[in-house]
Amino acid sequence: MERVDLKEKLDQLLEERKIKPLQNELEDMFAFDVAEYLSEIGEKDSLKMGKVFRLLTKCKGAEVFAELDAPEQEVIINSITDTELAAIVEELYVDDAVDMMEELPANIVKRVMRTATPDTRALINQYLKYENNSAGSIMTAEFVDLKKYMNVREAIARIRRIGEDKETIYVCYVTSADRKLEGVVSVKSLLLADDEDIIESIMDENVISVHTTDDRETAAEAISDYDLLAIPVVDNEDRLVGIITVDDVIDVIQHEATEDIEKMAAISPSDKPYSRTSVTEMWKRRVPWLLLLMLSATFTSMIITKFENALAACSVLVGFIPMLMDTGGNSGSQSATAIIRSLSCGDVEPKNTGMIIWKELRIAFLCGAVLAIVNFGKMLLVDNMILGNAAVTIPVAITVCTSLMLVVMFAKSVGSMLPLVAEKLGIDPTVMASPLISTITDSLALVVYFTLATFILRI
Amino acid sequence: MERVDLKEKLDQLLEERKIKPLQNELEDMFAFDVAEYLSEIGEKDSLKMGKVFRLLTKCKGAEVFAELDAPEQEVIINSITDTELAAIVEELYVDDAVDMMEELPANIVKRVMRTATPDTRALINQYLKYENNSAGSIMTAEFVDLKKYMNVREAIARIRRIGEDKETIYVCYVTSADRKLEGVVSVKSLLLADDEDIIESIMDENVISVHTTDDRETAAEAISDYDLLAIPVVDNEDRLVGIITVDDVIDVIQHEATEDIEKMAAISPSDKPYSRTSVTEMWKRRVPWLLLLMLSATFTSMIITKFENALAACSVLVGFIPMLMDTGGNSGSQSATAIIRSLSCGDVEPKNTGMIIWKELRIAFLCGAVLAIVNFGKMLLVDNMILGNAAVTIPVAITVCTSLMLVVMFAKSVGSMLPLVAEKLGIDPTVMASPLISTITDSLALVVYFTLATFILRI
Repeated sequence: MERVDLKEKLDQLLEERKIKPLQNELEDMFAFDVAEYLSEIGEKDSLKMGKVFRLLTKCKGAEVFAELDAPEQEVIINSITDTELAAIVEELYVDDAVDMMEELPANIVKRVMRTATPDTRALINQYLKYENNSAGSIMTAEFVDLKKYMNVREAIARIRRIGEDKETIYVCYVTSADRKLEGVVSVKSLLLADDEDIIESIMDENVISVHTTDDRETAAEAISDYDLLAIPVVDNEDRLVGIITVDDVIDVIQHEATEDIEKMAAISPSDKPYSRTSVTEMWKRRVPWLLLLMLSATFTSMIITKFENALAACSVLVGFIPMLMDTGGNSGSQSATAIIRSLSCGDVEPKNTGMIIWKELRIAFLCGAVLAIVNFGKMLLVDNMILGNAAVTIPVAITVCTSLMLVVMFAKSVGSMLPLVAEKLGIDPTVMASPLISTITDSLALVVYFTLATFILRI
Repeated sequence: MERVDLKEKLDQLLEERKIKPLQNELEDMFAFDVAEYLSEIGEKDSLKMGKVFRLLTKCKGAEVFAELDAPEQEVIINSITDTELAAIVEELYVDDAVDMMEELPANIVKRVMRTATPDTRALINQYLKYENNSAGSIMTAEFVDLKKYMNVREAIARIRRIGEDKETIYVCYVTSADRKLEGVVSVKSLLLADDEDIIESIMDENVISVHTTDDRETAAEAISDYDLLAIPVVDNEDRLVGIITVDDVIDVIQHEATEDIEKMAAISPSDKPYSRTSVTEMWKRRVPWLLLLMLSATFTSMIITKFENALAACSVLVGFIPMLMDTGGNSGSQSATAIIRSLSCGDVEPKNTGMIIWKELRIAFLCGAVLAIVNFGKMLLVDNMILGNAAVTIPVAITVCTSLMLVVMFAKSVGSMLPLVAEKLGIDPTVMASPLISTITDSLALVVYFTLATFILRI
C-alpha cells in the first residue's frame, strides 16, 4: 500500500474510534513509520499523539519511542503513567535510553530514573559518564557473549535463549571468566560449523576493537574499513563492556559529514536538525564567525587606504577588485575543500605535503593561465569595445590579468597548505575552509594587485 | 601487534625469502590490511607487489583484490596467468567484479571477460547495463532465497548448504516459483523459532525493497532509516534480482557526502580520490566553475564603474567594499549550507519555505544588528581614533553599518531561497552553495552600499 493511502486509512480508523483495527495496523507497520505518523499527529495535537501511542504494545511502543525526537518523547512521557514509562525504559536498548536522557529536561530525567529498575539505572548512569562523541557514549550493552570451551550446539542454544533482546546476535563475543575479550565468532561460522566443534577452534582471536574513550569516528572508520556488522568496545582493563552496531555507525557518519560541512561554511556545529533549532541558538552558532571574519577585514581596508593615491590616479582599477578577490577566494576554497575532505577520508596525510603542494601548483598554473587569457580577451572586447570604457587599456588589462594569475597561484597554495598545517598542529582542518581562506587571499590579492599596478602603470 | 611492527616483520620475512611464514602471516591478516600492505609495496615496486599477491590463497586473493584500487588491480592482472585470473573473478562478489570492470582499461576488461565462466560473464554483463549510481549498479546477486512452504529446519539446512559464498546470510528472502519477492525472514527469527515452524508463518510480508533503476541514495536512505542489514532489489516485473548490503551503503553515504562538499566548493565531483587524480583531470573539474564565476563578476565591475564619481568624491568608501562583500558572502553561504544539508538529510522540504524564510529573516536581523553595532564602534575607535583616518566620519560609519545590516538580511534571504528554488525546479541544490551565492550577494552589496552612500553622504 502507498504511504499516503495508509495514512488516510489510519486517520479514518482513528476518527471512527475503531481501536482494535487501528492497533493491528500500527502493530504491522515499521517503528520508523509509526514514529513519523505520530510526529504528524503531534504537530497538530500533542494530546492525541499521546493517546495513539498508548495503543501500541509494550515492545512496539519502546521501538517507536526510540525513533521519536526529544520534544515528542517528552510529550509521550508526560501522557503515560509511571508503570507504562518503566516498561518502556526496560524495553529500550541502553544506547537509546541514554540518548533520550541526554536530551530531556532534568525533571523528566528524574522521573525516568525513578521508574527504572536498579539494574537499568546503574547501566544508564554508567553510560552517561562517557564523554559525548566517545565510543562509550554510543555503545550498547546488549550483546551475546560466549565462552571458548562451549561447543557450537551449546553456543546456538545460548543465542536462542538470550538472543531476543540483543541488538545483534550475528556477531558473538568470546570472553574469559574475568570478562576479557578473547575472540569473535559470527553466526555464519557457527551455522557452517559442525555441532560438536569447540568455539575456541572456530573463533577469530584477531578481534578489532575500540576503547570506550576512543572517538566514535574511530569506531565508524573501523566498521567501514573492515565491513563489520558490529565492533566490540573494551575498557581500561581490556574487559568487554559493550558493542557498537553498524546502524549506529551510519548515523555517526552522516552526523560527522553534516558537522564538517557546517564548519566549512563557518557555522558552529550542533546536534539538532535545522527545523528544531531555535532562532537564538542558530544566531549563536553563526554570529561569532561572522564577527571574527568581519573584523579581520580590517586588513583589507588598511591595504586599500595605503594605496588610496594609486587608486585615485587610476580609478578604473577599483572595478576589478571584487573579481580578483572572489576568484582568489574560490580558487583557494576549491583546494582547501579537496584537501580537507581527502584528509577526513584518510586519502592523504600531512606527510604527503610535498606531493600535494606540487600537484596544486601545477593545477593552479593551468587554472590561472586559462582565467588570465579569457579575462584579457574579455576586458578588451567587452569592457573596452562593447561597453565603451576607454579607461580599460592594454596596460590595465595586463595588470589585472597578471595579478589574476598570481592570485590564483597564491590562493591555491595557501588553500592547500592551511588544512595540512592545521592537521599537523592537531587543530581541526575544517575550520580552515572557504571563509578563512577568502579572508587571507583577499589581503594577498590586494597587495599583489596594487604592487603590480604601481609597477606596470607607474602610478 | 601494532601495525608498524607487523609491517616490519612482513618486510623482513619477504627480504629473507621465508615464503611459508610470510604466507601464514598474510593469511591471518584482514583483507583490508593486506591490500594496504600491497599498495605500499606497489608504490615502490609493482613487480614485487604482483609476486606477493600470488602468495595468497585463492579465497584470500579475491578478498584482497576487491579491496585494491583500479591501478593496482591492473598491475595484479598483468602479473598473473589466465587460470589465476579466472579463479579470482569467480571468487569475487558480482558487485566487486562490476566495480572493477567499470574502472579498468578495455583490453584488461576483455581479458577478464574471456577467462570468466559463461555464467559469471552473463551476470557481469547484466550488471554493467545498470546505470551508474543506480541501485542495480551496486547490488550483488549472492543472497539466500527460501520458499514459504519450507520449515525452519529446512531453511537452516539450506543456509548451511549455500551460505558460504553469500554476501549476507542474516537476511533471507522468500520468493515464489517465478522469482517474485514474497517476504523476508532474518536468521534471528529462524533461530528464535521452533524447528517445525513454517517459513510463511514467521516471514515478514511487509518487505521494504528498491527498484534496479532507483537511485542508489534511495537504497542508502531506506537502509539507514529502517536500520536494515540489506535491502532487496527488484526488477520491472517485481522479481528479486539482487540485494544491497549495509557495508556497500556506508560507501555510498560517504561518497555522496564528498560529492556534496565538492559541489558546494565549486568543484565538479569525480569518483576518484585526490591522490589518484591527475593534474589535468583536477584542472578540468575546477576551471569551468572558476571561469563562470569570474565572468559573472562583470556585473560588480559595471556597478563600480557606474558609481565611479561617487567613489572619487568619497574615496574612503572603497576601503569597506571587501568587508561588505565578504560578510555578505559568508552570511549567505551559512544560510545556503544549512538549508542544503537539511534538504539532503530530509529534515526540511520546499513546502517548508515559509517557515525557513521567517526563521532566516529573524536570524539575519540578529546577526546584522550585532555586526553593525560592533562595526560602528570599530570604525570610530580603531579606524578614526587609533589609526587616525579622519575620513572615517560618523556619517560614513552610518552608511557602512546600515549597508552591512541590509546586506546580511539580503544575503541570508537569497542564501536560503536559492537552494529551495533549485530543489523545487529539480536542479541539484548543492550548486547553489557559497561561490554562486557570493557572486550574487556581491552585486547586491555594492548596489545597496552606493545607493545609501549617495543618499546619506549626498555625493
